[in-house]
Amino acid sequence: MPGKQEKIWTAALLVIGDEILSGRTQDRNIAQVASWLQVQGIRLAEVRVVPDVIARIADAVNALRTSYDYLFTTGGIGPTHDDISVDAVAAALGVPVVIHPEARAILEDYYQTRGGLNEARLRMARVPEGAELIPDRMSGAPGIKIGNIHMMAGVPAIAAQMLDALTGTLEGGAPLLSDTVGGWIKESEVADLLREVEKAHEACQIGSYPFFREGRTGANFVIRSTDAGELARCMDALCDGLAAKGLEFTRGGI
Amino acid sequence: MPGKQEKIWTAALLVIGDEILSGRTQDRNIAQVASWLQVQGIRLAEVRVVPDVIARIADAVNALRTSYDYLFTTGGIGPTHDDISVDAVAAALGVPVVIHPEARAILEDYYQTRGGLNEARLRMARVPEGAELIPDRMSGAPGIKIGNIHMMAGVPAIAAQMLDALTGTLEGGAPLLSDTVGGWIKESEVADLLREVEKAHEACQIGSYPFFREGRTGANFVIRSTDAGELARCMDALCDGLAAKGLEFTRGGI
Repeated sequence: MPGKQEKIWTAALLVIGDEILSGRTQDRNIAQVASWLQVQGIRLAEVRVVPDVIARIADAVNALRTSYDYLFTTGGIGPTHDDISVDAVAAALGVPVVIHPEARAILEDYYQTRGGLNEARLRMARVPEGAELIPDRMSGAPGIKIGNIHMMAGVPAIAAQMLDALTGTLEGGAPLLSDTVGGWIKESEVADLLREVEKAHEACQIGSYPFFREGRTGANFVIRSTDAGELARCMDALCDGLAAKGLEFTRGGI
Repeated sequence: MPGKQEKIWTAALLVIGDEILSGRTQDRNIAQVASWLQVQGIRLAEVRVVPDVIARIADAVNALRTSYDYLFTTGGIGPTHDDISVDAVAAALGVPVVIHPEARAILEDYYQTRGGLNEARLRMARVPEGAELIPDRMSGAPGIKIGNIHMMAGVPAIAAQMLDALTGTLEGGAPLLSDTVGGWIKESEVADLLREVEKAHEACQIGSYPFFREGRTGANFVIRSTDAGELARCMDALCDGLAAKGLEFTRGGI
Protein backbone atom coordinates (compact mmCIF):
# COMPACT_ATOMS: atom_id res chain seq x y z
CA MET A 1 0.00 0.00 0.00
CA PRO A 2 1.21 3.54 -0.70
CA GLY A 3 1.34 6.23 1.97
CA LYS A 4 -1.98 6.60 3.77
CA GLN A 5 -2.64 10.11 2.43
CA GLU A 6 -2.15 9.20 -1.18
CA LYS A 7 -5.31 8.58 -3.17
CA ILE A 8 -5.43 5.28 -5.04
CA TRP A 9 -7.05 5.88 -8.41
CA THR A 10 -9.24 3.00 -9.53
CA ALA A 11 -10.86 1.86 -12.73
CA ALA A 12 -13.24 -0.83 -13.89
CA LEU A 13 -13.41 -2.47 -17.29
CA LEU A 14 -16.68 -3.59 -18.85
CA VAL A 15 -16.18 -6.04 -21.71
CA ILE A 16 -19.29 -6.08 -23.88
CA GLY A 17 -19.66 -9.07 -26.10
CA ASP A 18 -21.43 -12.35 -26.70
CA GLU A 19 -18.30 -13.57 -28.47
CA ILE A 20 -16.34 -13.60 -25.21
CA LEU A 21 -19.16 -15.26 -23.24
CA SER A 22 -19.60 -17.95 -25.90
CA GLY A 23 -15.93 -18.83 -25.77
CA ARG A 24 -15.56 -18.11 -29.46
CA THR A 25 -13.12 -15.24 -28.93
CA GLN A 26 -10.20 -15.26 -26.51
CA ASP A 27 -10.30 -11.91 -24.72
CA ARG A 28 -7.18 -9.78 -25.17
CA ASN A 29 -8.50 -6.50 -23.83
CA ILE A 30 -8.44 -7.25 -20.11
CA ALA A 31 -4.66 -7.74 -20.01
CA GLN A 32 -4.10 -4.86 -22.43
CA VAL A 33 -6.19 -2.36 -20.47
CA ALA A 34 -4.77 -3.63 -17.16
CA SER A 35 -1.16 -3.13 -18.26
CA TRP A 36 -1.90 0.30 -19.69
CA LEU A 37 -3.66 1.42 -16.50
CA GLN A 38 -0.65 0.35 -14.39
CA VAL A 39 1.51 2.81 -16.29
CA GLN A 40 -1.07 5.58 -15.79
CA GLY A 41 -0.97 5.01 -12.00
CA ILE A 42 -4.55 3.72 -12.03
CA ARG A 43 -5.49 0.39 -10.50
CA LEU A 44 -7.84 -1.94 -12.37
CA ALA A 45 -10.16 -2.96 -9.54
CA GLU A 46 -12.88 -4.94 -11.32
CA VAL A 47 -13.76 -6.40 -14.68
CA ARG A 48 -17.17 -7.53 -15.85
CA VAL A 49 -18.13 -9.27 -19.07
CA VAL A 50 -21.78 -8.93 -20.09
CA PRO A 51 -23.77 -9.97 -23.17
CA ASP A 52 -25.02 -7.70 -25.98
CA VAL A 53 -28.21 -6.79 -24.10
CA ILE A 54 -28.93 -3.08 -23.49
CA ALA A 55 -30.38 -3.49 -20.00
CA ARG A 56 -27.51 -5.70 -18.84
CA ILE A 57 -24.91 -3.28 -20.19
CA ALA A 58 -26.67 -0.25 -18.71
CA ASP A 59 -26.94 -1.88 -15.26
CA ALA A 60 -23.24 -2.75 -15.27
CA VAL A 61 -22.29 0.75 -16.48
CA ASN A 62 -24.17 2.36 -13.61
CA ALA A 63 -22.78 -0.05 -11.01
CA LEU A 64 -19.20 0.44 -12.16
CA ARG A 65 -19.06 4.15 -13.06
CA THR A 66 -20.25 5.06 -9.57
CA SER A 67 -17.92 2.64 -7.76
CA TYR A 68 -14.61 3.59 -9.40
CA ASP A 69 -12.84 6.71 -10.64
CA TYR A 70 -12.88 5.56 -14.25
CA LEU A 71 -14.85 3.11 -16.34
CA PHE A 72 -13.58 1.68 -19.61
CA THR A 73 -15.75 -0.32 -21.98
CA THR A 74 -14.70 -2.42 -24.95
CA GLY A 75 -16.91 -3.66 -27.76
CA GLY A 76 -20.19 -2.81 -29.39
CA ILE A 77 -19.37 0.54 -31.04
CA GLY A 78 -19.19 -0.66 -34.65
CA PRO A 79 -21.68 -0.32 -37.51
CA THR A 80 -23.80 -3.48 -37.16
CA HIS A 81 -27.10 -4.29 -35.47
CA ASP A 82 -25.35 -5.96 -32.50
CA ASP A 83 -23.39 -2.77 -31.74
CA ILE A 84 -25.56 -1.32 -29.00
CA SER A 85 -23.09 0.02 -26.45
CA VAL A 86 -23.83 3.68 -27.26
CA ASP A 87 -27.56 3.11 -26.71
CA ALA A 88 -26.82 1.28 -23.44
CA VAL A 89 -24.53 3.99 -22.05
CA ALA A 90 -27.01 6.71 -23.08
CA ALA A 91 -29.77 4.76 -21.30
CA ALA A 92 -27.58 4.38 -18.21
CA LEU A 93 -26.93 8.13 -18.12
CA GLY A 94 -30.49 9.11 -19.06
CA VAL A 95 -29.38 11.16 -22.08
CA PRO A 96 -30.40 10.87 -25.75
CA VAL A 97 -28.23 9.46 -28.53
CA VAL A 98 -27.10 12.14 -30.99
CA ILE A 99 -24.86 12.30 -34.07
CA HIS A 100 -21.52 13.88 -33.12
CA PRO A 101 -20.66 16.38 -35.90
CA GLU A 102 -16.91 15.84 -35.59
CA ALA A 103 -17.32 12.05 -35.69
CA ARG A 104 -19.48 12.42 -38.77
CA ALA A 105 -16.82 14.56 -40.44
CA ILE A 106 -14.10 12.03 -39.55
CA LEU A 107 -16.15 9.18 -41.03
CA GLU A 108 -17.05 11.18 -44.17
CA ASP A 109 -13.37 11.84 -44.71
CA TYR A 110 -12.33 8.24 -43.97
CA TYR A 111 -14.92 6.65 -46.25
CA GLN A 112 -14.49 9.17 -49.09
CA THR A 113 -12.05 6.79 -50.77
CA ARG A 114 -13.65 3.67 -49.30
CA GLY A 115 -17.14 3.54 -50.84
CA GLY A 116 -18.79 6.48 -49.09
CA LEU A 117 -20.61 7.00 -45.81
CA ASN A 118 -23.71 4.78 -45.74
CA GLU A 119 -26.30 4.50 -43.00
CA ALA A 120 -24.49 1.66 -41.23
CA ARG A 121 -21.21 3.55 -41.16
CA LEU A 122 -22.98 6.66 -39.90
CA ARG A 123 -24.01 4.59 -36.85
CA MET A 124 -20.41 4.97 -35.73
CA ALA A 125 -20.95 8.75 -35.32
CA ARG A 126 -23.70 8.14 -32.74
CA VAL A 127 -22.76 9.16 -29.18
CA PRO A 128 -24.55 9.78 -25.89
CA GLU A 129 -25.33 13.53 -25.79
CA GLY A 130 -22.46 15.47 -24.22
CA ALA A 131 -19.72 13.04 -25.28
CA GLU A 132 -16.25 13.84 -26.58
CA LEU A 133 -14.32 11.68 -29.05
CA ILE A 134 -11.29 9.47 -28.53
CA PRO A 135 -9.27 9.56 -31.76
CA ASP A 136 -8.46 6.32 -33.60
CA ARG A 137 -5.90 6.48 -36.37
CA MET A 138 -6.55 2.91 -37.48
CA SER A 139 -10.21 2.48 -38.40
CA GLY A 140 -11.43 6.06 -38.56
CA ALA A 141 -14.28 5.34 -36.16
CA PRO A 142 -13.50 7.17 -32.91
CA GLY A 143 -13.95 6.02 -29.33
CA ILE A 144 -16.21 7.95 -26.99
CA LYS A 145 -15.59 9.70 -23.67
CA ILE A 146 -18.46 10.85 -21.52
CA GLY A 147 -18.02 11.73 -17.87
CA ASN A 148 -15.70 9.12 -16.42
CA ILE A 149 -16.67 6.54 -19.07
CA HIS A 150 -14.30 5.68 -21.92
CA MET A 151 -15.85 3.59 -24.68
CA MET A 152 -13.43 1.73 -26.91
CA ALA A 153 -13.57 -0.76 -29.76
CA GLY A 154 -13.62 -4.49 -29.13
CA VAL A 155 -10.94 -5.29 -31.71
CA PRO A 156 -7.79 -5.26 -29.55
CA ALA A 157 -5.60 -3.47 -32.12
CA ILE A 158 -8.12 -0.61 -32.35
CA ALA A 159 -8.61 -0.48 -28.59
CA ALA A 160 -4.81 -0.15 -28.33
CA GLN A 161 -4.90 2.93 -30.59
CA MET A 162 -7.57 4.49 -28.39
CA LEU A 163 -5.60 3.75 -25.21
CA ASP A 164 -2.61 5.34 -26.87
CA ALA A 165 -4.64 8.47 -27.56
CA LEU A 166 -5.65 8.59 -23.88
CA THR A 167 -2.10 8.12 -22.55
CA GLY A 168 -1.21 10.82 -20.06
CA THR A 169 -4.66 12.45 -20.15
CA LEU A 170 -6.11 10.78 -17.03
CA GLU A 171 -5.21 11.74 -13.50
CA GLY A 172 -3.58 8.89 -11.59
CA GLY A 173 -1.34 8.19 -8.63
CA ALA A 174 2.07 6.63 -8.29
CA PRO A 175 2.30 3.71 -10.69
CA LEU A 176 2.26 0.29 -9.09
CA LEU A 177 5.74 -1.20 -9.49
CA SER A 178 6.42 -4.91 -9.53
CA ASP A 179 9.35 -7.27 -9.44
CA THR A 180 9.39 -11.03 -9.91
CA VAL A 181 11.45 -13.95 -8.72
CA GLY A 182 10.74 -17.55 -9.65
CA GLY A 183 12.04 -21.05 -9.79
CA TRP A 184 11.22 -24.75 -9.96
CA ILE A 185 9.76 -24.33 -6.49
CA LYS A 186 6.56 -25.87 -5.09
CA GLU A 187 4.64 -22.94 -3.64
CA SER A 188 3.57 -25.11 -0.69
CA GLU A 189 7.26 -25.26 0.35
CA VAL A 190 7.51 -21.49 0.67
CA ALA A 191 4.02 -20.49 1.82
CA ASP A 192 5.24 -19.52 5.30
CA LEU A 193 8.17 -17.55 3.91
CA LEU A 194 5.91 -15.58 1.56
CA ARG A 195 3.51 -14.74 4.37
CA GLU A 196 6.29 -13.64 6.71
CA VAL A 197 8.11 -11.51 4.15
CA GLU A 198 4.89 -9.80 3.11
CA LYS A 199 4.01 -9.11 6.75
CA ALA A 200 7.44 -7.54 7.35
CA HIS A 201 7.02 -5.18 4.37
CA GLU A 202 3.71 -3.37 4.78
CA ALA A 203 4.05 -1.34 1.61
CA CYS A 204 4.30 -4.51 -0.49
CA GLN A 205 1.99 -7.28 -1.62
CA ILE A 206 3.31 -10.66 -2.73
CA GLY A 207 1.42 -12.82 -5.19
CA SER A 208 2.31 -16.47 -5.77
CA TYR A 209 1.68 -17.88 -9.24
CA PRO A 210 2.26 -21.62 -9.63
CA PHE A 211 2.55 -23.31 -13.02
CA PHE A 212 3.11 -26.68 -14.64
CA ARG A 213 5.61 -26.60 -17.46
CA GLU A 214 7.74 -29.27 -19.12
CA GLY A 215 6.16 -31.76 -16.72
CA ARG A 216 7.51 -29.89 -13.67
CA THR A 217 6.03 -27.70 -10.97
CA GLY A 218 7.26 -24.16 -10.48
CA ALA A 219 6.11 -20.79 -9.29
CA ASN A 220 6.76 -17.12 -9.78
CA PHE A 221 6.46 -14.72 -6.88
CA VAL A 222 5.49 -11.16 -7.77
CA ILE A 223 6.03 -8.31 -5.33
CA ARG A 224 3.98 -5.16 -5.96
CA SER A 225 4.39 -1.75 -4.37
CA THR A 226 4.19 1.92 -5.26
CA ASP A 227 7.42 2.45 -3.24
CA ALA A 228 10.55 1.46 -5.18
CA GLY A 229 12.77 1.31 -2.07
CA GLU A 230 10.40 -0.92 -0.13
CA LEU A 231 9.97 -3.11 -3.20
CA ALA A 232 13.73 -3.63 -3.44
CA ARG A 233 14.05 -4.39 0.29
CA CYS A 234 11.14 -6.84 0.14
CA MET A 235 12.70 -8.60 -2.86
CA ASP A 236 16.05 -8.87 -1.05
CA ALA A 237 14.33 -10.39 1.98
CA LEU A 238 12.45 -12.89 -0.17
CA CYS A 239 15.58 -13.93 -2.07
CA ASP A 240 17.51 -14.30 1.20
CA GLY A 241 14.70 -16.51 2.49
CA LEU A 242 14.69 -18.68 -0.63
CA ALA A 243 18.47 -19.04 -0.46
CA ALA A 244 18.28 -19.97 3.26
CA LYS A 245 15.95 -22.84 2.28
CA GLY A 246 18.50 -24.03 -0.26
CA LEU A 247 16.13 -23.28 -3.18
CA GLU A 248 17.38 -22.19 -6.59
CA PHE A 249 15.68 -19.12 -7.98
CA THR A 250 15.91 -16.69 -10.87
CA ARG A 251 15.48 -12.93 -10.50
CA GLY A 252 12.92 -11.72 -13.02
CA GLY A 253 11.08 -15.02 -12.83
CA ILE A 254 11.08 -18.10 -15.01
CA MET B 1 -33.88 -18.15 -28.75
CA PRO B 2 -35.15 -21.66 -28.02
CA GLY B 3 -38.87 -22.49 -27.69
CA LYS B 4 -40.59 -20.26 -25.14
CA GLN B 5 -41.24 -23.06 -22.63
CA GLU B 6 -37.67 -24.29 -22.49
CA LYS B 7 -35.64 -23.16 -19.52
CA ILE B 8 -32.35 -21.49 -20.38
CA TRP B 9 -29.76 -22.59 -17.85
CA THR B 10 -27.34 -19.85 -16.94
CA ALA B 11 -23.98 -19.57 -15.22
CA ALA B 12 -21.61 -16.87 -14.05
CA LEU B 13 -17.86 -17.08 -13.74
CA LEU B 14 -15.93 -15.26 -11.02
CA VAL B 15 -12.23 -14.96 -11.78
CA ILE B 16 -10.34 -14.30 -8.55
CA GLY B 17 -6.90 -12.88 -8.98
CA ASP B 18 -4.73 -9.80 -8.73
CA GLU B 19 -2.56 -11.29 -11.49
CA ILE B 20 -5.35 -10.84 -14.05
CA LEU B 21 -6.20 -7.31 -12.87
CA SER B 22 -2.53 -6.26 -12.97
CA GLY B 23 -2.20 -7.43 -16.56
CA ARG B 24 0.60 -9.78 -15.59
CA THR B 25 -1.31 -12.92 -16.56
CA GLN B 26 -3.37 -13.34 -19.71
CA ASP B 27 -6.63 -14.97 -18.61
CA ARG B 28 -7.36 -18.33 -20.23
CA ASN B 29 -10.18 -19.51 -18.01
CA ILE B 30 -12.98 -17.33 -19.38
CA ALA B 31 -12.80 -18.87 -22.87
CA GLN B 32 -12.21 -22.35 -21.44
CA VAL B 33 -15.18 -22.25 -19.05
CA ALA B 34 -17.36 -20.60 -21.71
CA SER B 35 -16.66 -23.30 -24.29
CA TRP B 36 -17.20 -26.09 -21.76
CA LEU B 37 -20.52 -24.60 -20.62
CA GLN B 38 -21.78 -24.42 -24.22
CA VAL B 39 -21.41 -28.19 -24.49
CA GLN B 40 -23.26 -28.68 -21.18
CA GLY B 41 -26.20 -26.65 -22.52
CA ILE B 42 -25.54 -23.86 -20.01
CA ARG B 43 -25.15 -20.26 -21.07
CA LEU B 44 -22.35 -18.16 -19.59
CA ALA B 45 -24.27 -14.98 -18.78
CA GLU B 46 -21.73 -12.90 -16.85
CA VAL B 47 -18.07 -12.86 -15.86
CA ARG B 48 -16.50 -10.79 -13.11
CA VAL B 49 -12.85 -10.43 -12.21
CA VAL B 50 -12.13 -9.26 -8.66
CA PRO B 51 -8.95 -8.82 -6.61
CA ASP B 52 -7.71 -11.08 -3.80
CA VAL B 53 -9.79 -9.29 -1.14
CA ILE B 54 -12.21 -11.38 0.93
CA ALA B 55 -15.00 -8.80 1.10
CA ARG B 56 -14.86 -8.14 -2.65
CA ILE B 57 -14.95 -11.85 -3.46
CA ALA B 58 -17.77 -12.52 -1.01
CA ASP B 59 -19.90 -9.68 -2.41
CA ALA B 60 -19.45 -10.94 -5.95
CA VAL B 61 -20.19 -14.54 -4.91
CA ASN B 62 -23.48 -13.50 -3.34
CA ALA B 63 -24.49 -11.29 -6.27
CA LEU B 64 -23.74 -14.00 -8.84
CA ARG B 65 -24.88 -17.19 -7.08
CA THR B 66 -28.35 -15.73 -6.57
CA SER B 67 -28.67 -14.34 -10.12
CA TYR B 68 -27.74 -17.45 -12.12
CA ASP B 69 -28.28 -21.21 -11.95
CA TYR B 70 -24.58 -21.93 -11.47
CA LEU B 71 -21.53 -20.04 -10.30
CA PHE B 72 -17.99 -21.06 -11.15
CA THR B 73 -14.94 -19.52 -9.56
CA THR B 74 -11.30 -19.81 -10.60
CA GLY B 75 -8.27 -19.00 -8.51
CA GLY B 76 -7.28 -18.66 -4.89
CA ILE B 77 -7.58 -22.27 -3.69
CA GLY B 78 -3.85 -23.07 -3.43
CA PRO B 79 -1.56 -23.28 -0.39
CA THR B 80 -0.25 -19.71 -0.05
CA HIS B 81 -1.31 -16.67 1.98
CA ASP B 82 -2.99 -15.06 -1.03
CA ASP B 83 -5.29 -18.08 -1.51
CA ILE B 84 -8.39 -16.83 0.29
CA SER B 85 -11.25 -17.97 -1.94
CA VAL B 86 -12.43 -20.63 0.54
CA ASP B 87 -12.63 -18.05 3.33
CA ALA B 88 -14.48 -15.65 1.04
CA VAL B 89 -17.07 -18.22 -0.10
CA ALA B 90 -17.59 -19.39 3.49
CA ALA B 91 -18.11 -15.76 4.54
CA ALA B 92 -20.57 -15.25 1.68
CA LEU B 93 -22.56 -18.31 2.75
CA GLY B 94 -22.26 -17.62 6.49
CA VAL B 95 -20.71 -21.03 7.23
CA PRO B 96 -17.41 -21.90 8.94
CA VAL B 97 -14.31 -23.19 7.18
CA VAL B 98 -13.55 -26.82 8.04
CA ILE B 99 -11.00 -29.44 7.01
CA HIS B 100 -12.62 -31.90 4.58
CA PRO B 101 -11.51 -35.40 5.69
CA GLU B 102 -11.48 -36.81 2.15
CA ALA B 103 -9.46 -33.84 0.85
CA ARG B 104 -7.01 -34.35 3.69
CA ALA B 105 -6.67 -38.04 2.78
CA ILE B 106 -6.13 -37.17 -0.90
CA LEU B 107 -3.42 -34.66 0.00
CA GLU B 108 -1.73 -37.04 2.48
CA ASP B 109 -1.61 -39.66 -0.24
CA TYR B 110 -0.40 -37.23 -2.92
CA TYR B 111 2.37 -35.70 -0.79
CA GLN B 112 3.52 -39.04 0.70
CA THR B 113 6.18 -39.26 -2.04
CA ARG B 114 6.52 -35.49 -2.41
CA GLY B 115 7.91 -34.28 0.91
CA GLY B 116 4.90 -34.87 3.18
CA LEU B 117 1.82 -32.85 4.12
CA ASN B 118 2.90 -29.60 5.76
CA GLU B 119 0.67 -26.84 7.13
CA ALA B 120 0.62 -24.91 3.87
CA ARG B 121 -0.41 -27.97 1.87
CA LEU B 122 -3.10 -28.79 4.44
CA ARG B 123 -4.65 -25.40 3.62
CA MET B 124 -5.82 -27.05 0.39
CA ALA B 125 -8.09 -29.38 2.42
CA ARG B 126 -10.01 -26.39 3.84
CA VAL B 127 -13.59 -26.06 2.54
CA PRO B 128 -16.73 -24.15 3.47
CA GLU B 129 -18.73 -26.48 5.77
CA GLY B 130 -21.08 -28.69 3.75
CA ALA B 131 -18.93 -28.78 0.61
CA GLU B 132 -18.22 -31.72 -1.67
CA LEU B 133 -14.99 -32.19 -3.63
CA ILE B 134 -14.30 -31.90 -7.35
CA PRO B 135 -11.56 -34.41 -8.18
CA ASP B 136 -8.33 -33.25 -9.82
CA ARG B 137 -6.02 -35.90 -11.22
CA MET B 138 -3.25 -33.41 -11.94
CA SER B 139 -2.23 -31.62 -8.75
CA GLY B 140 -3.92 -33.71 -6.07
CA ALA B 141 -5.63 -30.66 -4.59
CA PRO B 142 -9.35 -30.97 -5.30
CA GLY B 143 -11.85 -28.33 -6.37
CA ILE B 144 -14.86 -27.57 -4.19
CA LYS B 145 -18.60 -27.72 -4.83
CA ILE B 146 -21.04 -26.16 -2.41
CA GLY B 147 -24.64 -25.45 -3.36
CA ASN B 148 -24.55 -24.07 -6.90
CA ILE B 149 -20.94 -22.83 -6.49
CA HIS B 150 -18.05 -24.66 -8.16
CA MET B 151 -14.61 -23.54 -7.04
CA MET B 152 -11.74 -24.37 -9.34
CA ALA B 153 -8.02 -23.73 -9.56
CA GLY B 154 -6.64 -20.67 -11.33
CA VAL B 155 -4.02 -22.60 -13.31
CA PRO B 156 -5.88 -23.28 -16.57
CA ALA B 157 -4.59 -26.85 -16.98
CA ILE B 158 -5.85 -27.76 -13.50
CA ALA B 159 -9.16 -25.96 -14.01
CA ALA B 160 -9.53 -28.04 -17.19
CA GLN B 161 -9.19 -31.26 -15.16
CA MET B 162 -11.88 -30.07 -12.77
CA LEU B 163 -14.23 -29.14 -15.62
CA ASP B 164 -13.60 -32.59 -17.07
CA ALA B 165 -14.62 -34.16 -13.74
CA LEU B 166 -17.85 -32.10 -13.80
CA THR B 167 -18.74 -32.99 -17.40
CA GLY B 168 -22.26 -34.35 -17.63
CA THR B 169 -23.02 -33.81 -13.93
CA LEU B 170 -24.85 -30.47 -14.25
CA GLU B 171 -28.38 -30.09 -15.54
CA GLY B 172 -28.55 -27.99 -18.69
CA GLY B 173 -30.74 -27.31 -21.69
CA ALA B 174 -30.25 -27.74 -25.41
CA PRO B 175 -26.70 -26.77 -26.29
CA LEU B 176 -26.32 -23.53 -28.19
CA LEU B 177 -25.22 -24.36 -31.73
CA SER B 178 -23.29 -21.99 -33.95
CA ASP B 179 -22.14 -21.69 -37.52
CA THR B 180 -19.83 -19.14 -39.08
CA VAL B 181 -19.35 -17.51 -42.45
CA GLY B 182 -16.70 -14.90 -43.16
CA GLY B 183 -14.80 -13.03 -45.79
CA TRP B 184 -12.77 -9.95 -46.65
CA ILE B 185 -15.94 -7.99 -46.13
CA LYS B 186 -16.35 -4.61 -44.40
CA GLU B 187 -19.09 -5.15 -41.85
CA SER B 188 -20.50 -1.73 -42.64
CA GLU B 189 -21.34 -3.02 -46.15
CA VAL B 190 -23.54 -5.79 -44.80
CA ALA B 191 -25.02 -4.26 -41.65
CA ASP B 192 -28.52 -4.04 -43.19
CA LEU B 193 -28.33 -7.60 -44.50
CA LEU B 194 -27.35 -8.96 -41.07
CA ARG B 195 -30.18 -7.10 -39.37
CA GLU B 196 -32.76 -8.31 -41.91
CA VAL B 197 -31.65 -11.94 -41.86
CA GLU B 198 -31.63 -12.02 -38.07
CA LYS B 199 -35.12 -10.48 -37.96
CA ALA B 200 -36.43 -13.13 -40.37
CA HIS B 201 -35.08 -15.98 -38.20
CA GLU B 202 -36.36 -15.44 -34.67
CA ALA B 203 -34.67 -18.53 -33.24
CA CYS B 204 -31.25 -17.23 -34.30
CA GLN B 205 -28.87 -14.49 -33.25
CA ILE B 206 -26.17 -13.15 -35.56
CA GLY B 207 -22.94 -11.69 -34.23
CA SER B 208 -20.58 -9.69 -36.45
CA TYR B 209 -16.87 -9.87 -35.62
CA PRO B 210 -14.61 -7.58 -37.64
CA PHE B 211 -10.84 -7.96 -37.75
CA PHE B 212 -7.73 -6.47 -39.29
CA ARG B 213 -5.34 -9.04 -40.69
CA GLU B 214 -2.56 -8.89 -43.26
CA GLY B 215 -3.37 -5.18 -43.61
CA ARG B 216 -6.92 -5.90 -44.75
CA THR B 217 -10.36 -5.58 -43.23
CA GLY B 218 -12.59 -8.61 -42.86
CA ALA B 219 -15.34 -9.99 -40.69
CA ASN B 220 -16.81 -13.26 -39.52
CA PHE B 221 -20.53 -13.60 -38.96
CA VAL B 222 -21.58 -16.12 -36.34
CA ILE B 223 -25.15 -17.42 -36.19
CA ARG B 224 -26.21 -18.98 -32.88
CA SER B 225 -29.32 -21.02 -32.15
CA THR B 226 -30.45 -24.03 -30.14
CA ASP B 227 -32.45 -25.16 -33.22
CA ALA B 228 -30.28 -26.88 -35.83
CA GLY B 229 -32.87 -26.54 -38.62
CA GLU B 230 -33.39 -22.83 -38.07
CA LEU B 231 -29.63 -22.33 -37.85
CA ALA B 232 -29.16 -23.97 -41.26
CA ARG B 233 -31.98 -21.93 -42.85
CA CYS B 234 -30.59 -18.70 -41.38
CA MET B 235 -27.12 -19.51 -42.70
CA ASP B 236 -28.53 -20.22 -46.18
CA ALA B 237 -30.36 -16.90 -46.15
CA LEU B 238 -27.23 -15.03 -45.07
CA CYS B 239 -25.06 -16.69 -47.73
CA ASP B 240 -27.69 -15.97 -50.40
CA GLY B 241 -27.66 -12.34 -49.28
CA LEU B 242 -23.88 -12.08 -49.42
CA ALA B 243 -23.85 -13.66 -52.89
CA ALA B 244 -26.56 -11.25 -54.09
CA LYS B 245 -24.26 -8.38 -53.08
CA GLY B 246 -21.45 -9.92 -55.13
CA LEU B 247 -19.33 -10.54 -52.02
CA GLU B 248 -16.97 -13.49 -51.71
CA PHE B 249 -17.34 -15.51 -48.54
CA THR B 250 -16.11 -18.69 -46.93
CA ARG B 251 -18.36 -21.10 -45.01
CA GLY B 252 -16.81 -21.81 -41.63
CA GLY B 253 -15.26 -18.33 -41.53
CA ILE B 254 -11.82 -17.02 -42.33
